Formats: sequence, C-alpha cells, structure tokens
Amino acid sequence: MKQINIALLGCGTVGTGVARLLLEKQDMIRARVGAQINLARVADIDITTDRGIRFEPGVLTTDAQAVIEDPQIDIIVEMIGGETIAKDLILAAIDNGKHIVTANKALLASHGNAIFAAAAEKGVDLAFEASVGGCMPIIKTIRESLVSNDITSMIGILNGTCNYILTKITDDGSAFETALGEAQASGFAEADPTLDIEGIDTAHKIAILSALAYGMQINLKDVYTEGISQITPLDIEFAGQFGYRIKLLAISKHKGESVEARVHPTMIPFDNMLSNVNANLNAVTICADAVEDILLYGRGAGMMPTASAVLGDLADIARNLLTGATGRVPLLSYQMNNIRPVPVLPISEIVTHYYLRFSALDRPGVLSKISGILGKNQISIKSAYQKGRKTNGSVPLVMLTHSAREADVIQALKEIESLDVVSKQPVLIRIEDENNE
Amino acid sequence: MKQINIALLGCGTVGTGVARLLLEKQDMIRARVGAQINLARVADIDITTDRGIRFEPGVLTTDAQAVIEDPQIDIIVEMIGGETIAKDLILAAIDNGKHIVTANKALLASHGNAIFAAAAEKGVDLAFEASVGGCMPIIKTIRESLVSNDITSMIGILNGTCNYILTKITDDGSAFETALGEAQASGFAEADPTLDIEGIDTAHKIAILSALAYGMQINLKDVYTEGISQITPLDIEFAGQFGYRIKLLAISKHKGESVEARVHPTMIPFDNMLSNVNANLNAVTICADAVEDILLYGRGAGMMPTASAVLGDLADIARNLLTGATGRVPLLSYQMNNIRPVPVLPISEIVTHYYLRFSALDRPGVLSKISGILGKNQISIKSAYQKGRKTNGSVPLVMLTHSAREADVIQALKEIESLDVVSKQPVLIRIEDENNE
Repeated sequence: MKQINIALLGCGTVGTGVARLLLEKQDMIRARVGAQINLARVADIDITTDRGIRFEPGVLTTDAQAVIEDPQIDIIVEMIGGETIAKDLILAAIDNGKHIVTANKALLASHGNAIFAAAAEKGVDLAFEASVGGCMPIIKTIRESLVSNDITSMIGILNGTCNYILTKITDDGSAFETALGEAQASGFAEADPTLDIEGIDTAHKIAILSALAYGMQINLKDVYTEGISQITPLDIEFAGQFGYRIKLLAISKHKGESVEARVHPTMIPFDNMLSNVNANLNAVTICADAVEDILLYGRGAGMMPTASAVLGDLADIARNLLTGATGRVPLLSYQMNNIRPVPVLPISEIVTHYYLRFSALDRPGVLSKISGILGKNQISIKSAYQKGRKTNGSVPLVMLTHSAREADVIQALKEIESLDVVSKQPVLIRIEDENNE
Repeated sequence: MKQINIALLGCGTVGTGVARLLLEKQDMIRARVGAQINLARVADIDITTDRGIRFEPGVLTTDAQAVIEDPQIDIIVEMIGGETIAKDLILAAIDNGKHIVTANKALLASHGNAIFAAAAEKGVDLAFEASVGGCMPIIKTIRESLVSNDITSMIGILNGTCNYILTKITDDGSAFETALGEAQASGFAEADPTLDIEGIDTAHKIAILSALAYGMQINLKDVYTEGISQITPLDIEFAGQFGYRIKLLAISKHKGESVEARVHPTMIPFDNMLSNVNANLNAVTICADAVEDILLYGRGAGMMPTASAVLGDLADIARNLLTGATGRVPLLSYQMNNIRPVPVLPISEIVTHYYLRFSALDRPGVLSKISGILGKNQISIKSAYQKGRKTNGSVPLVMLTHSAREADVIQALKEIESLDVVSKQPVLIRIEDENNE
C-alpha cells in the first residue's frame, strides 16, 4: 500500500485532534483513500506534555525547520496559528515543495495573496477548509460544488464565541460582561477574547470566503468590522418585539463591480434559519443564481470538528498525490490569472435597514424633532416604538427604518445626538430582512 | 485551451437546465476548471420543441446509441430517468469507456451495485450528486469531507413534494387531498404523485446515502417505507400540542453490525432544525463522531438547482480528465474491496418513541384497558391526552410512549384494536426526539 507522510507543526488542541484522528482512523482512511497517511513528524516547542497519544519513537521533535526540510515529508499541517512563525514556516515549506494544510484564517486573511501566489508558483496544493466554519464544508462547496453559480451573497454566523455570548444574553437576559465571563468559564471564550468579540476573527473568515466566491484577491483591510461588546439585553428585548434576533453576522454581497464585506451585530427575522443557530454553532447561507439558497450548519471550532476538516483536506491532497493530480482544483476557486482585485464598498455606501434606539427626554415634540431630522436625511421610518419606563428621566425611543444609505444615517444620528433632549449616543444596529423592501 | 466533450441523454426540465448552465456559464467554468466543457451532443426523442436554447447545428439528435458510441464524447450525462432505457444506455456507455453523470436515484437505488461494479471494472468515473438532495452537496460531503468520521446517523427531509404538502396541511389545516391538489397545481407534485407521496423516492435516496456513509452495498429492498397519505390535520394539531412537527423523514442509523434505514412520517421537536425546513426545501443532518452534527439545507429538486449539482459533477470529472486522475475518489466512498453487505434491521426490531392515537368510546375504564395492554407489552407511557370533543360517539385518546420496540407496539395495537370500545384502527406515528430517553 502506498504511503503519504505528513508532519504536524504545532500540537495544541486542534493539532492533537488531527494526530488522534490520523492514528485512530487509520483503517477507515486506508479503506477510503486507498493509501496509508502516516503521521511521520510532530514539531512543537513542548514535547513533554502527555497528549494522550502514543507517538512512535522519533516522531516528536522541537525542530520545525528540520521537519520542513525533511525530504520524506509530503504534506505539512500548520497548526501553530498566528501570523509570524507560521507564515515563515509555510513559505519555507512551500519553497521546499511541500503541500500545505492549515486552519490559520488570520494568516490567510492577512497574507493569503502572497502565500497563494507562492503555492501556485511552486505548484503545490494548499488546503484550508478548517480555516472557515470548522467542519462545515463551506470552502469545498464554493470551490467545487458551486462551479457554475454566480454567488450573490453569503451571510454567516462564523464565530462560536460570539454566538454563544449572544445566545446567553438572549436566553438569560445577562449583561455582556456576565455572558462573556460564563463563556470563558465554559471554555467557549479565550482569556483574551478580543479577536473573537471584536469581530476580527469573523472578518478574517469573510475575507477568505469573499475571495473564493467572487474570484477576487483577499482584501481584509476593507472589511468593515464591528464586535458585540456594545450589545445590551435591552436591544435584544426590543429586537424580539419586532420579530428579530441579534446575531454577529458576516455579510458578503456581490453587487455589480463591487463587493460588500462587513461584520457587525445584525437583526434577522425569526423565520431566517440563521436566527435558530444557537450556542457555539456556526452556519452560513449562500445565495447563488442556480441553487438559490444553500445553508451549511455545524461546529465552527473545537478539537475534533476542526480536526475532521483538516483530515478532509489531507485526504484531498493525498488523493492528488496518488493520482498525480496536484493543482486539480485552483487554490482560490478560479485559475490564478482570473483572480482580480475587486473593490469593497465603504460601509458609508451600503444601503440596508436600521434599528435606531435613542435615549430621549420624555417631553412633547421629541418624536417630531428626531423624525424630522431623519426625514431631512432621506431616511424613511418603518415603525417607531416608545417604551414607557424611564431611566434617569430618559425613555428609550426605538425606530426601524426602510432602506437607507449608511452615510445618511450617520449624518442624521450626528444631528440627533446634538439635540438637548437626547441624553446618550444613539444605538445603531443593522437589519438584514429580505422580506422588507 | 483543453476541451472536454459532453453529451446529454434526455433533455427534459433538468437536462435543459444543464444545457443552459453549460452555455450561459462557459466563461465562469473555463475560469474555474481551466478547460472548455463543450455540450457536443444532446439526444432526446423530441428534438423539435423550442427549449429556449440555441444549440449548435448537429448537436441535437434522436439517436442516443450513436451518441454513446461517439469516440469524441468524454462524459455522458444521463437525464432520462427511470430504470429501463437509462440503465441500458448507462451500462453501454460505461462499456464504451465513457464517464457518467446521473441524477437517477431510482436507477442507482435499484441497480446501483451492478452499475458501480461495471464502472469500477471499466475504470470510469460515475458521479451522482444530483440524485440526492438536489443542489445540497451531501454526497461530496460524505465521500470527501467526512473521510475520517464514523457516521452514526443521517436524518433528512429529502422529498420536496412531501414537505410542501405537509407544510400546507400544517399551516392551513387542509386535508391531505386538498394539499396534494394544491401541490399539483403549483407544479410541486407530479400528475401521478405515487413515487413521492408514498415515500419511495425518499427511500431511493436514503438507500444511496446509507451505502456511501457506511461502506455498505446499496440495499433498497430492506428500507422500510411509509408515505404521508394517512397524515391528518388532527394528528398535526396534536403534534403541535406536544411540541412536535410532522415531517416525512429518511432515517438512517449505524448501530453495531447493522443499519436502520427507514422512511416514514415522523414527529420532531420544534427545536430540531429540520422542523423549520418548510415548503419544498430539503435538509439533512449528519451525526458523526468527529464533527458531531452537520446540517445541509437547500433545494432538493427543480431545474436549475439540480442542474447546478450536475455541473459540479461535470467539473469534478473534467478535472480528473485534465489531470489523469480518474477514479481519484472511490464511487461509493470506500474502495470497492472494502464495501460489504450490511444487514438492515427489520422495522419490527427498531426501538423508538411513538405517538399513538386511538378512537375510543367515551366510557369509564377505557383508558385503563388501553394502558393495561400497552404495559403488558413493555410499553411505558410518557404522557396521555384525551380530547374532549366527540366524533360519532368516539373521542381521540392520544398517548406518547417512552422508548419501545416496534414489534411490541404492533402487538399491543392489534390487541387494542380488538377491544369493543375502540372504534377505528389506531394511528401510529414514530417520534425522533433525542432529548427524550
């Protein structure tokens, strides 16, 4: 039986999961792929911790450089994370003709164009299914299944930590800080949760998906990114009254010659399947001309779900090696010479629906003043709601708009904030509701 | 640029969709696959109807046999349907070394073992993504993404006609016949709807998926199959009161050395994602050890969604042809020598929860008699509900059971039916509720 030798760089949680699957599922993998995928080397700075795995002697090493230079190794699985050492090792491994599997969305979102160019130049495969949506086969679906579809939008819940926290706030009415603390205690949030809760991790993922879907270069810097730390139980309660739930969404739309790519808390109607995606689960809806809607749903993170995606990639590359078909599917869906830079629309130019909450003094004329300013800025109000209870003399005044241009909304909010009857900065939450015009 | 020549056998609705995508999306396919996929021949008994497509001269023909013998043709797309002509043409095409794409679930479920064996013997690719779940990439996900997973269950809504009808009955309270008539008028049901409403089409699909998931031979004859024609608004109303919706589910479970594969109307809890899959949409949940749960959702039928799946298959085979990688992924997930016959459990041996509805005379002692018979047959009642209103002197008496063996339930129902206080055949609907023990 043929053998494919792989090496793991980094053996933390997901790396350990990959090692476990490779060892425990050897028989299944042989029966399906028709070859033995050998875990030949594992490089990590820590080779003493017991990972519950019996590695063959000589497999563990601290010398990553030696591993990527080892002529026996066919595929390098990068599980280090981050954008420094991982980047250097991947580029060096490509240079040595190694095929690459990685789950490193931060690296691909920031340096993917250079890395993919290097891989294409060298003629090696680079697979990264685990970088977006964990075990959901979203990348394979875009790259292979939707090959005849013009994808018009992708809307996803792509960060389990944020979804867990928002679900907690929704279900228990807890404050953001309390929900975050619980997420940390349950292992669903990191000690430093910034990358997750500020939407940065989600931005990495939608930058990658947008490139795959539209044949464009990866463009992270123009993805508008807003996290969930300002979301309050009050806004979640109001959302519910209007038939909406609040989710941190990655939204990517292909419109004419440009693309919208943005990450922010978003209200979606109860009857949108995404509104029922709870706890730490992920899901993404793809709209495309031939298929209409597809939704994929699953665990976007975690040891074994992510490891499963890595194993899928390993099998793909192994199959290419066995049949001499390296490069069979282009790295970024399109042949490299068909990938163009596509402009990402500034957030000020998007047109969507808005939920606006003002803290206004409970005085006659306030509603008229606020709605007057909105009207003057071409913002049409769909519904308004004033809650009876006072907080420090102010009452919450909530408005839902029809389609409006974000620049107009921002201008209106600036004018409204300067009114002396308005006591706090207004709250703005975008709404994604295709049933609304 | 390299060219791949394909021929279409049958140009009905889906065939026309395939032709449209091949012609309209030529540029995209070239940019992604790196080759020209040519629609070289289209064979149909009707070559005069205007399909809204401008075929090149000489493409249309009535002579399917000449097409499969044409040495210029690389891939045959079988869009005829049925199990007679389609089977002969596919086997002859394989014999001529042609690669095959088909959406023909009836054929694969009934004759797949012979057809796959012929394809493997001849070393040609045979792709059939469109045969199950339309545009949802369920086959690719099982064959390629879940390569390191022991799949424990697959539960799916795989027939849009049935789901449309059940959604209608649920939403409007219409009788089955009314809902079927509406489905026919809206084009969601055939003039002869037997294959759909009796669950046969769904059985074809779960037979195929079970083979792919468990490395077993296709076994249609042992799939227990029950359709939706007996479902009444009354049972749907009761289901709602217990927190359930009724869906026609395909259920496949891998348990030890055997497999459950069954199709029947099933009650599922509101918080199961499948309960929110409405109208003519399809979805399937896959449970597996590494990924836990994955759900795919999309259009399971229709011209363009199905054509999209066919195009994905065409691209896969074209890529294999371009790189010399035919046979890269085994036809049925596992290498042919690893595919075993696996017994399918008779329905009498399954253990699940049951909804039972009796039409009983409203007399003292009835509840005690019925529950006594259930108890004697090792069936434990979880809850009982008696509706006040009388119909012809009878009242509906509803019971939900804990886990019970179907053979015991059938025996109990036989005894209960013979009671003189029971006026009609009892109604049995299985429940799939993992929150219940």
